[in-house]
Amino acid sequence: MSMNQLGIVKRNIVRADAEARDRLARFGTATIHEAMGRVGLMKPTMRPIYVGAHACGTAVTVLLHPGDNWMMHVAAEQIQPGDLVVAAVTAECTDGFFGDLLATSFKARGAQGLVIDGGVRDVKDLTAMGFPVWSKAISARGTIKATLGSVNIPVICAGTCVNPGDVVVADDDGIVVVPAAIAMQVADAAQKREDLESDKRARLAAGALGLDMYEMRGPLGRAGLRYID
Amino acid sequence: MSMNQLGIVKRNIVRADAEARDRLARFGTATIHEAMGRVGLMKPTMRPIYVGAHACGTAVTVLLHPGDNWMMHVAAEQIQPGDLVVAAVTAECTDGFFGDLLATSFKARGAQGLVIDGGVRDVKDLTAMGFPVWSKAISARGTIKATLGSVNIPVICAGTCVNPGDVVVADDDGIVVVPAAIAMQVADAAQKREDLESDKRARLAAGALGLDMYEMRGPLGRAGLRYID
Amino acid sequence: MSMNQLGIVKRNIVRADAEARDRLARFGTATIHEAMGRVGLMKPTMRPIYVGAHACGTAVTVLLHPGDNWMMHVAAEQIQPGDLVVAAVTAECTDGFFGDLLATSFKARGAQGLVIDGGVRDVKDLTAMGFPVWSKAISARGTIKATLGSVNIPVICAGTCVNPGDVVVADDDGIVVVPAAIAMQVADAAQKREDLESDKRARLAAGALGLDMYEMRGPLGRAGLRYID
Amino acid sequence: MSMNQLGIVKRNIVRADAEARDRLARFGTATIHEAMGRVGLMKPTMRPIYVGAHACGTAVTVLLHPGDNWMMHVAAEQIQPGDLVVAAVTAECTDGFFGDLLATSFKARGAQGLVIDGGVRDVKDLTAMGFPVWSKAISARGTIKATLGSVNIPVICAGTCVNPGDVVVADDDGIVVVPAAIAMQVADAAQKREDLESDKRARLAAGALGLDMYEMRGPLGRAGLRYID
Amino acid sequence: MSMNQLGIVKRNIVRADAEARDRLARFGTATIHEAMGRVGLMKPTMRPIYVGAHACGTAVTVLLHPGDNWMMHVAAEQIQPGDLVVAAVTAECTDGFFGDLLATSFKARGAQGLVIDGGVRDVKDLTAMGFPVWSKAISARGTIKATLGSVNIPVICAGTCVNPGDVVVADDDGIVVVPAAIAMQVADAAQKREDLESDKRARLAAGALGLDMYEMRGPLGRAGLRYID
Amino acid sequence: MSMNQLGIVKRNIVRADAEARDRLARFGTATIHEAMGRVGLMKPTMRPIYVGAHACGTAVTVLLHPGDNWMMHVAAEQIQPGDLVVAAVTAECTDGFFGDLLATSFKARGAQGLVIDGGVRDVKDLTAMGFPVWSKAISARGTIKATLGSVNIPVICAGTCVNPGDVVVADDDGIVVVPAAIAMQVADAAQKREDLESDKRARLAAGALGLDMYEMRGPLGRAGLRYID
Repeated sequence: MSMNQLGIVKRNIVRADAEARDRLARFGTATIHEAMGRVGLMKPTMRPIYVGAHACGTAVTVLLHPGDNWMMHVAAEQIQPGDLVVAAVTAECTDGFFGDLLATSFKARGAQGLVIDGGVRDVKDLTAMGFPVWSKAISARGTIKATLGSVNIPVICAGTCVNPGDVVVADDDGIVVVPAAIAMQVADAAQKREDLESDKRARLAAGALGLDMYEMRGPLGRAGLRYID
Repeated sequence: MSMNQLGIVKRNIVRADAEARDRLARFGTATIHEAMGRVGLMKPTMRPIYVGAHACGTAVTVLLHPGDNWMMHVAAEQIQPGDLVVAAVTAECTDGFFGDLLATSFKARGAQGLVIDGGVRDVKDLTAMGFPVWSKAISARGTIKATLGSVNIPVICAGTCVNPGDVVVADDDGIVVVPAAIAMQVADAAQKREDLESDKRARLAAGALGLDMYEMRGPLGRAGLRYID
Repeated sequence: MSMNQLGIVKRNIVRADAEARDRLARFGTATIHEAMGRVGLMKPTMRPIYVGAHACGTAVTVLLHPGDNWMMHVAAEQIQPGDLVVAAVTAECTDGFFGDLLATSFKARGAQGLVIDGGVRDVKDLTAMGFPVWSKAISARGTIKATLGSVNIPVICAGTCVNPGDVVVADDDGIVVVPAAIAMQVADAAQKREDLESDKRARLAAGALGLDMYEMRGPLGRAGLRYID
Repeated sequence: MSMNQLGIVKRNIVRADAEARDRLARFGTATIHEAMGRVGLMKPTMRPIYVGAHACGTAVTVLLHPGDNWMMHVAAEQIQPGDLVVAAVTAECTDGFFGDLLATSFKARGAQGLVIDGGVRDVKDLTAMGFPVWSKAISARGTIKATLGSVNIPVICAGTCVNPGDVVVADDDGIVVVPAAIAMQVADAAQKREDLESDKRARLAAGALGLDMYEMRGPLGRAGLRYID
Repeated sequence: MSMNQLGIVKRNIVRADAEARDRLARFGTATIHEAMGRVGLMKPTMRPIYVGAHACGTAVTVLLHPGDNWMMHVAAEQIQPGDLVVAAVTAECTDGFFGDLLATSFKARGAQGLVIDGGVRDVKDLTAMGFPVWSKAISARGTIKATLGSVNIPVICAGTCVNPGDVVVADDDGIVVVPAAIAMQVADAAQKREDLESDKRARLAAGALGLDMYEMRGPLGRAGLRYID
Repeated sequence: MSMNQLGIVKRNIVRADAEARDRLARFGTATIHEAMGRVGLMKPTMRPIYVGAHACGTAVTVLLHPGDNWMMHVAAEQIQPGDLVVAAVTAECTDGFFGDLLATSFKARGAQGLVIDGGVRDVKDLTAMGFPVWSKAISARGTIKATLGSVNIPVICAGTCVNPGDVVVADDDGIVVVPAAIAMQVADAAQKREDLESDKRARLAAGALGLDMYEMRGPLGRAGLRYID
């Protein structure tokens, strides 16, 4: 954010490669976070409005002011099928910036979901519609439409920087942001991790110990671990 | 609260008009909050113990001390069919003031639910009974019965003032308090809002933009919004 | 904790009597907490990852460092059928210390569940497996394996001291720790409470008031309660 | 708050008796809180901006919207010498609603201080001016002037109801609200407590035990206290 | 942050113009925040370790892992006179990452202070040295030196993005980040605001009302404000 | 805590060696925490009531119930010169359990200070008396004297277990608990750390870098640190 970033709508953004986005949609956020080298995760205070919510899309970003959702309507016009809206707020606010009318509009435009560092309402309707939202609060308190924010500028949402066009993956465990430029590379790394895990799972289910499977006994002993009776 | 408000039970309270209460029961809290001019909402830290909980009733109020639920038993006797109990606590406390035995009693008296600015327990049983509770915590920690509070005095619950007899509506989005004197007026305003929304929803689902539907392009431009490519 | 308690694994721990453990498994945490004289409860910030989760087991304890789950693998080897793992962390940390691979291993060893004063991930998989976890956070952020903690030393988890071998009971209402030495005695007291409650529930459902059933009118009057109209 | 309470300024309010106010100014908040029967205290999250701050005045109340301090200017005109401004906000907000310019104005009008359930800024200047403020946050983030609130209506500030004209006493320990109608009665009760305490303090300083001075040994024994060696 | 941003030290950074930095040092954070159009402020949970702390410098940024301050030593070498260190942490952590030894080193290198989204210790010594630190916690709990972070990459600290070379101004009211490219422009705007305020302060001190001075009576009336008696 | 630990006062406790206690009094909590192997620290939410507070004493422990300070009077009788009182509460509570009368009594008995996992009041008086208190809240809200707790049983205070007789050291950085059995050993280790630090401080003040002084360049390079220009 700088002196000249309020009141801006950027129309032409560079979205991450669609194939990379679709491949990333198959993985959980924990896997992707590991595959990225353990960066890019939003704070765990962000929670889905219903159990089992899962979404993946290219980011359309919105910067809102507390208690004001005017820019959400401006953002709606910039949504393309396969996008996911990421909304940041300039100050702490738990108001319900988003409800069933806006969700109807976002869905009609092809949005995969919403990640908002604020509150949401009409959660019963949104759940019935199957429109997934991750937020830090649920609140019936609505907002006004009076102050300009911006659309498609870089924003900080729940402690993580999101650039328009980045791939955002969200599920029960959290929300991870994959920079557009490395989306394919991360998808590859995630696939590699997942391939390795299937075999491990079978062995652990059969009673093998991670201590042996990962050959940890040596390092633990050298680190000074003592067994006592 | 004043020097002479502890240890009081007010028996004859003026409940909101039953028809107004029943009409308000048909609306969500977000709609009612807007219809009231955006006042009367409790803090979003209050959450229902199960998804889909919804209740509407005339308030029987209780003022409790931390760790003590003695007055809940006094309140039970004041409940009439169609009432909803609102419990405030004189200091921060997450103890489980309410469980399945009290719920059995409240339900037998005709209570529609409980809103408590403290903790609740036996949530599995309460869910099985279909007795809705909104609270700020769930805690197995029970309480004692040793200090006097009051019943049917004005209380502050989750940041909002509740007078006995007010209509309280609670759902997945929050809890809103409608003063008894304006209950019918608020029901009218809520109905009006809802009538308007059906049409809007259909148009948005068909792809219309809020920007056009609400004629926002002019005001946004005058406020200084710039589109860049 | 003291200077010589890091890097230790105690193999031979004294587990609570298996019969006492199995009897305690039949009660809710609210009942057990009351039966113990209202001590032994963890803080209400600990929540189950799915509704209806219930577990009871003898504690295998783990002390972890923030962001490091190495000792979880060491703990796995110490699990016996009927145990429940209790993990404490030396500092505030919401990272996801535990996911589906560790759960597969813990389950194969006979663990009844996990209580962790930190975060957990892969909650969708854990729910599908029916492996109950109580935690203070859900987070996709994984951990490293680099620093020694300990297994089966006394730990402080969510404000309560847990000794290896104690019975830990967890459900929707919270988590209660029963010292091994008094497990049978607590089971007796809990049974006694539950026997008394069935009769009360029936009377309350029939419309009786707690005021009369518990003979509270006298004490309330003597404490100064005034009824006004 | 109700449908018709926004956008109102009440000019003629009934202030508590000036003598009662001046007598209350001599006591600490802990003493007054006890004298009132342990009600009327704001939440302990409210803190003074400097050590040793102490103020007592009759309340001029303001209801603000988050991020908007327009009504503070309206309130300034209603201040009379001996008043203390109490500002509530319709939703959680830590913005800096008040700074050195407003403080200059409030002081010129005779205000004794400010209690605000939000944020404050210019705390270095306010401290230099000796203008005491109690707030829940300090923040350089300023506010706009765009939405109507009200002045001199009953407000809920930090969990306590304040009516215009009530006596508000604030010090290092907290903030207590004394309803105008009982101000003199509370001043009497506070004086009585303080008289009793001087003697006790001297005896305790000389080594007497509260156990003996308050004759607690009997009640403790009857409650079951056991001394072990 | 992306896959290739861990383990990096950028040596040649573009620092904001020294004259702009020195001019900004003369203003409070509230003034600068307004002058920037009300953006760039860190969250109000960041607090100085002593009253009256004030610092202004060009940012040397550090990204730390929870419980690990290894990179602080790497950062020390990059400090030039007039710099201010800004430390972000990849996850929530209140450990004491910084104490008197590091402060001695930073000061010797010419650092103006430290802003850290974590904890600090030895606050008595730091206060005696006059080395200002803004943090979200104070904690005696030290850290280890085991994992790589980065120095002089863009970081998110307390909700705000900081690029190496930006001007960071911190005082009792908060912390504001001025992008290097607009530092001079912001200094001009801040000076302009300050010039205007002196005159206003004098008029308010003489009893003028903001209502008249800012010509608010008309707009308030048109917005619907009603005076009642 | 177990079924038989409420309502107990243990009179004969084993206090840590007085010489070890006096030696520990010379070190800061950060140094002692490191010397103990980084265990034993209370949570950083505990803060001193005045800047510069420092205390060291052998623990007399008290277990209180929320809103009830009866046992503080029982504890007073158990205090010996050189003791420091550590008060835990069975549930979250910010009430002011302790004020100037109790402080007068504690001081007369020889107490060095108080550490309380709850609230404190009369902080102006306590500061004037020079009686140091560490608490998690300041609150004018007093307590009643109605329920039994215990004195001199092991308690959990701010996340750390304290046994009666342990040495407790508290300063601006936090509070550390040293088990009585290892007090002398920890004092030795702390002395050793402090001796080493004087020399380092001088070298850093002269401009030496930790990178060189601690020979970190090799390990950092091997860990993969890259310098870029």
